[in-house]
Amino acid sequence: MPDLPFDATDPRLAAAAWSRIAEPPDAAAGALVENLGAVEALGWLTSVAGGRASAGAQDWERAVAGWAPRLENLDIRRELDTLHRLGGHLLLPGDPGWPAALDDLGVERPHALWVRGGAVTGTRAVAVVGARAATTYGQTMAAELGTGLAEAGVTVVSGGAYGIDAAAHRGALTVDGVTTAVLAGGVDRLYPVGNTRLLNAVAASGAVVSEVPPGSVPSRNRFLARNRLIAALGAATVVVEAAWRSGALSTAARAADLSRPVGAVPGPVTSMASAGCHRLMREQGAVCVTDVAEVLELAGAAGEHLTTPDRPAPPGLLDGLDPVARRVLDALPARGSAPVANVARAAGLPPAEVRAALGNLELEGRARRTGSAWARPR
Amino acid sequence: MPDLPFDATDPRLAAAAWSRIAEPPDAAAGALVENLGAVEALGWLTSVAGGRASAGAQDWERAVAGWAPRLENLDIRRELDTLHRLGGHLLLPGDPGWPAALDDLGVERPHALWVRGGAVTGTRAVAVVGARAATTYGQTMAAELGTGLAEAGVTVVSGGAYGIDAAAHRGALTVDGVTTAVLAGGVDRLYPVGNTRLLNAVAASGAVVSEVPPGSVPSRNRFLARNRLIAALGAATVVVEAAWRSGALSTAARAADLSRPVGAVPGPVTSMASAGCHRLMREQGAVCVTDVAEVLELAGAAGEHLTTPDRPAPPGLLDGLDPVARRVLDALPARGSAPVANVARAAGLPPAEVRAALGNLELEGRARRTGSAWARPR
Repeated sequence: MPDLPFDATDPRLAAAAWSRIAEPPDAAAGALVENLGAVEALGWLTSVAGGRASAGAQDWERAVAGWAPRLENLDIRRELDTLHRLGGHLLLPGDPGWPAALDDLGVERPHALWVRGGAVTGTRAVAVVGARAATTYGQTMAAELGTGLAEAGVTVVSGGAYGIDAAAHRGALTVDGVTTAVLAGGVDRLYPVGNTRLLNAVAASGAVVSEVPPGSVPSRNRFLARNRLIAALGAATVVVEAAWRSGALSTAARAADLSRPVGAVPGPVTSMASAGCHRLMREQGAVCVTDVAEVLELAGAAGEHLTTPDRPAPPGLLDGLDPVARRVLDALPARGSAPVANVARAAGLPPAEVRAALGNLELEGRARRTGSAWARPR
Repeated sequence: MPDLPFDATDPRLAAAAWSRIAEPPDAAAGALVENLGAVEALGWLTSVAGGRASAGAQDWERAVAGWAPRLENLDIRRELDTLHRLGGHLLLPGDPGWPAALDDLGVERPHALWVRGGAVTGTRAVAVVGARAATTYGQTMAAELGTGLAEAGVTVVSGGAYGIDAAAHRGALTVDGVTTAVLAGGVDRLYPVGNTRLLNAVAASGAVVSEVPPGSVPSRNRFLARNRLIAALGAATVVVEAAWRSGALSTAARAADLSRPVGAVPGPVTSMASAGCHRLMREQGAVCVTDVAEVLELAGAAGEHLTTPDRPAPPGLLDGLDPVARRVLDALPARGSAPVANVARAAGLPPAEVRAALGNLELEGRARRTGSAWARPR
């Protein structure tokens, strides 16, 4: 095993190297780096992989056997050069701007974030995720939530896929909001290609980030690993549309693992694109969310962003009445008029009470006296 | 106060009379009849209302003042004649065929049911309710649930309104199911008139019932009172569509009061007709139900009618694989082939493990050896 061609005692280079060596999520690498620091951990790995020392326990030997092949031709300066050429920067745990929410991932916290753009998230972020094969309904909802969150000063976090991801970003961008896309592969290759223009706009507003270096392909496993970052970055995760089996459900599961609230947008039960959302509500206790106010409530600290308990609706004829007045009003004949005795019989109430209630209703313009009888107004 | 013109010592006539005298739900009348029996309670009322005795406590005086006006011209034989002319029959608590589920209403249990048709409910019933102003989506869902419940041998219980109520009955009737309509007014006047043909079909299949005698108008208060009967008759209540403020929500609330499970069918959040359903899920803990299997599970005894934990879906490429095999398969190049060392580096796994996994994948036809390199099948 040759020595590494870069300065492996540079903490930033060592951390970046670990993000290249360990396939996320790799709890062993996480624990090693957390305990020794990236530099010491890398030094240990090179000595062990080079046969100059023993890995010790069998678990560690297995881990080293997985990492060692990636030490060959490892020169993390190349990937950093690529990042810098694209105007990007490396973000390490503890750096100013490092999203502290990722620390909740423990040993599965990324070694580094490869960032194109500015701030990864603001003080509050919400993950909006869902199916690539989204319907017009789902995309409309995702865009509305993206817009509403941005207007509330909340960063939108999602992937970079077609469908719900793209619609959520677009919704935030239409109001110049801040939005962050977490990619499964390297940030040098904006994937999918059809979203290149959108992801460039995302980078200009917020950030396009990845935990794997430039050059890394967006494999299936990396999509699954990436989902934990989206779940961790969001104070809550909202699934807008998802099929019965969908990657978005894994993001929801990761959010639940992290004790982050999960919301799901309902849809027609006849739409397969909503089946996963309904499944989350039924099986995982996801909260039904239907608008941005409810999403903000889900993501908010206690007492913050509470939705109004009731919504404006046209007042009904019987609104604001006590039970006796309701029954009296209900007992007035639809046409014509009736004496108090008849109204009392129809209402099943004592005549004295009915007389008093009618007097009050008359004052409010809800009943009308015609001689000794009573009628509805007008 | 004149003596009553009918035999007030006949328990059936006395009970029927109470269903005419007390405006439901009337807990005082319920408690009185429960304690004294309908005959004794009626005797007491006539003597008190006639001034021959004192009602005692002030609460009772007030109750009597509400009941007394309805003693005038009371001859419950008239209403029974009307019922019998229509081929109907009176059902009293304890009668064979009396739905024991109504006994859960306690002092708000009806004094009698005025029935047109046969059995009021079978051994199991589910209430399917919702908005009059239903959408095509809601009516389709209500009809599907009605059909599915009927096919499962479950009685459908609903009101007689246009929209969801009518669609639920129709769905049950299309497969010759049993369905029960609970009316707010008397069963002599099928209301609304536009549903006359449907309600006659309901009576022929199951029953059209009311707790108030023929001649009673379907007032607003009676709709609200009627909702408790629908909620009590169903082992569960399902709201298919409901506006943010809707009578169907009161049925759901009564079901919850009775510790009956409540389900709500989700819909597009852009549909005002589903706003009440989503509200029930958010605020009242209603269960999201999307098909008849889920409704049966909701209504079933423990372990009965469990929905399958997973649904058939096309198997994915990575299904049924252990995590190592997944990562190895994921690491095979999309095109062409690669030696074990390259696959191991791409997977971030020890080469020895990768070699073993590739051997197994080859046996399963998921990987293909080409000389010393490995590729995806075909």
